[in-house]
Amino acid sequence: MGISPAELGSPGKEQQAAGVGILLQIMMLVLSFVVGHVLRRHKFYYLPEASASLLIGLIVGGLANISDTETSIRTWFNFHEEFFFLFLLPPIIFQSGFSLSPKPFFSNFGAIVTFAILGTFIASVVAGVLVYLGGLMYVMYGLPFVECLMFGALISATDPVTVLSIFQELGTDMNLYALVFGESVLNDADNVPCVGVGFTSALLFKYAGLDIDNLQNLECCLFVLFPYFSYMLVEGLRLSGIVSILFTGIVMKHYTYSNLSENSQQFVSAFFHLISSLAETFTFIYMGFDIAMEKHSWSHVGFISFSILFIGVARAANVFSCAFLVNLVRPVHRQVPLKHQKALWYSGLRGAMAFALALQSVHDLPEGHGQIIFTATTAIVVLTVLLIGGSTGTMLEALQVVGDGHDGHLGESFELNNGYVAPSYNEDGTAGNRFKMKLKEFQKSTVSFSALDRNYLTPFFTSQNGEDEEEHVFGNSSDEPMPSSRRGGFHGHSYNPT
Amino acid sequence: MGISPAELGSPGKEQQAAGVGILLQIMMLVLSFVVGHVLRRHKFYYLPEASASLLIGLIVGGLANISDTETSIRTWFNFHEEFFFLFLLPPIIFQSGFSLSPKPFFSNFGAIVTFAILGTFIASVVAGVLVYLGGLMYVMYGLPFVECLMFGALISATDPVTVLSIFQELGTDMNLYALVFGESVLNDADNVPCVGVGFTSALLFKYAGLDIDNLQNLECCLFVLFPYFSYMLVEGLRLSGIVSILFTGIVMKHYTYSNLSENSQQFVSAFFHLISSLAETFTFIYMGFDIAMEKHSWSHVGFISFSILFIGVARAANVFSCAFLVNLVRPVHRQVPLKHQKALWYSGLRGAMAFALALQSVHDLPEGHGQIIFTATTAIVVLTVLLIGGSTGTMLEALQVVGDGHDGHLGESFELNNGYVAPSYNEDGTAGNRFKMKLKEFQKSTVSFSALDRNYLTPFFTSQNGEDEEEHVFGNSSDEPMPSSRRGGFHGHSYNPT
Repeated sequence: MGISPAELGSPGKEQQAAGVGILLQIMMLVLSFVVGHVLRRHKFYYLPEASASLLIGLIVGGLANISDTETSIRTWFNFHEEFFFLFLLPPIIFQSGFSLSPKPFFSNFGAIVTFAILGTFIASVVAGVLVYLGGLMYVMYGLPFVECLMFGALISATDPVTVLSIFQELGTDMNLYALVFGESVLNDADNVPCVGVGFTSALLFKYAGLDIDNLQNLECCLFVLFPYFSYMLVEGLRLSGIVSILFTGIVMKHYTYSNLSENSQQFVSAFFHLISSLAETFTFIYMGFDIAMEKHSWSHVGFISFSILFIGVARAANVFSCAFLVNLVRPVHRQVPLKHQKALWYSGLRGAMAFALALQSVHDLPEGHGQIIFTATTAIVVLTVLLIGGSTGTMLEALQVVGDGHDGHLGESFELNNGYVAPSYNEDGTAGNRFKMKLKEFQKSTVSFSALDRNYLTPFFTSQNGEDEEEHVFGNSSDEPMPSSRRGGFHGHSYNPT
Repeated sequence: MGISPAELGSPGKEQQAAGVGILLQIMMLVLSFVVGHVLRRHKFYYLPEASASLLIGLIVGGLANISDTETSIRTWFNFHEEFFFLFLLPPIIFQSGFSLSPKPFFSNFGAIVTFAILGTFIASVVAGVLVYLGGLMYVMYGLPFVECLMFGALISATDPVTVLSIFQELGTDMNLYALVFGESVLNDADNVPCVGVGFTSALLFKYAGLDIDNLQNLECCLFVLFPYFSYMLVEGLRLSGIVSILFTGIVMKHYTYSNLSENSQQFVSAFFHLISSLAETFTFIYMGFDIAMEKHSWSHVGFISFSILFIGVARAANVFSCAFLVNLVRPVHRQVPLKHQKALWYSGLRGAMAFALALQSVHDLPEGHGQIIFTATTAIVVLTVLLIGGSTGTMLEALQVVGDGHDGHLGESFELNNGYVAPSYNEDGTAGNRFKMKLKEFQKSTVSFSALDRNYLTPFFTSQNGEDEEEHVFGNSSDEPMPSSRRGGFHGHSYNPT
């Protein structure tokens, strides 16, 4: 006859509401997984899983709105930015780093950084200025200049969560994938990433001797805690946790992972895959539900439609100018082709990240301006996830940049690139060319990283022989087809030392 | 140049505090795992992992108290009962059901229910009345009678989390383990458990055809969501989620598990083991930290010391009277021996559950009575976890009830019991004997469950042949030694169909 917690009056009531709230969330999660599975099985790519989850959230949220659900249950569905940034985002970004094929990412690193930093800056300014001009010309609600720039910055960062979810499901060209994904993540790269934690973990697992029998649970517990440790360390220092956890993922997959016992390797791959699937699906449901529940000021339809137009323009300014810059320095066979540029322009998806940031601005800005920005962002999120997300597949097919057929040429271009960098220094040195050379040096430094890795990092941080390792890390990845589905087998991404 | 969330003023500040708070928690978790590992390796059983975690929490909490840590970080360490009941407790109890050897549990079911329901009732009343009498006689602070009974109920329920953690680490006699553990969990059995969800999941996985290639992540996602679904469903109905999730664990292991693909079986075993280890360790750290941070009214030392004495008396009244009743009905070779009774008395550990319930009473009771009850409970929790927990090993060894040597005789007594029940009806039928017969009928019903399981449930809910299954479920478990460490290999508990 212990006291059941439900019997103690009001805390029990609260707990009941929490139970119902969580129950609803789990039901929506299960529904999303099942719907996503059915859609994939029937190869219906007009509704990617992300869009389906968002729709489910919207519908259930709408129903809850109509049926006057109790406030105590509703509070379980308010989108808390803090919850998103602390608990949903880290596993998604870590898994993307952990399952990333490092080659396309690092061989395109120069281009990625250009798109992410310069490109997003251009897009922010262009969008902000256009929105301000629109306000001055009375075609839309006029916001102060600084708020326009803020809105521009907020809406110009493409979203790693949404991009990941939709691109991975489509099985896009690796090269394009690396560009779009890298751009979305490095949007946030306003400071040097801390990857020390990843390397520390590699050393710990190399020397702790945990890869013996009966210690697998301890080994996995520690392994699973490390990425989160890294994220929180960096957040606590007020730096960018997202970039940090991405690189922690890459480092841990590269070095720490091979120090684990075989069972633990299988387990952690599956574990991170599972957790990130759950977090990702939940993010879209959660966002959909909150969008349906929040109060919006739909009176500013003009503002919303012009914003969408201006964002398209700003994205074009970003992509085409940066691509021009990147192509200036790349040899002919490595140019970013026009069809890739078009695909890059089209795939500027906005999702959970913009939504979370806009939610903060509601509280910060005076005179209901936050409300307007929030509503506009919400509308843009829903439209891009549902319309652009759903049509990305068709668009990429039309541009012929989908599928595995292109991977081969990618791997090839990387091989050529390895041989390419050295001779390129023989060109003449005008002012324009000196700029080119700077860019090329930067590019070279990313290539020479693979030598550093092979000769020093891998032998130091793993218990394996450096030459063996090289085979797996850089040799094989060009043969690996892009996994066509994220929900696929556990060992799709798994690193299998022979 | 996306806006890093840390740049948006006060929400960023909050998030930084959250980052630091979580960082501290992760560091304590890692420390606990490492300390636990070192202690186990050196076979130092005077400080079980649970006690070590509690100590780490107490020490760090004390330091944070002295060093005037910011309030925003502190709030991350307040023990929220809701968080405990909704997120920490379910995985722990589910895992205990999932890894339970069903035989000792079900063959002792009658005794377990007697201890859990009648025994806890006796202990609650005895403790409550003694505390009230103590108050009347001015040897301790006098509380109103109803509050005394409440305190009695709160403190008499032994704690499944603590009991599990310490007993599993010691490798106790299966029979005793089943009694103590069953008692702790069924303390909460004030209503019929809902196990329908477990059976539903078995059917779902039998017919959904998910055990094929490339669907393992989907399979695991759904499997992992089911227990939580069950818990929240029952909590939402204001019934006891703890009992429900225990039985869901047993049912899902028995039926659903064998419908999974082999990879998924390995994964989910390891997953639940990992999650429950994390939740369990975190519970003790969290409790230790909160104990160090909360305000206590230590002026009532008399109340605390007399409470401890009275609880010992109440526990004795519970164990010895219930054991007498159980022995009345059992044949000689299945009697609960006196040394087991003593061990049962000694192992009445109070932990996180009592703490969480006491925390609620702080708000509910007038005139600082809640504060007194809370402080007394806290003191009892610390003392039982550290002193009794640390000495349980020595005590059980002294009573010779530790280890694998006893498992054989247990299995044996079960076999005998199977043959025993039928002839026992031939005895004469006086009033006392009719009562005995009622009890025996109850016992028989738990035994005949194994026939029902073999002939109907297993063939219906799993894709396996019923006769094969029988071998595994009831035949083999007597040979299985009690796993000597919870942190041991993944596949220690795993169910391995040949």
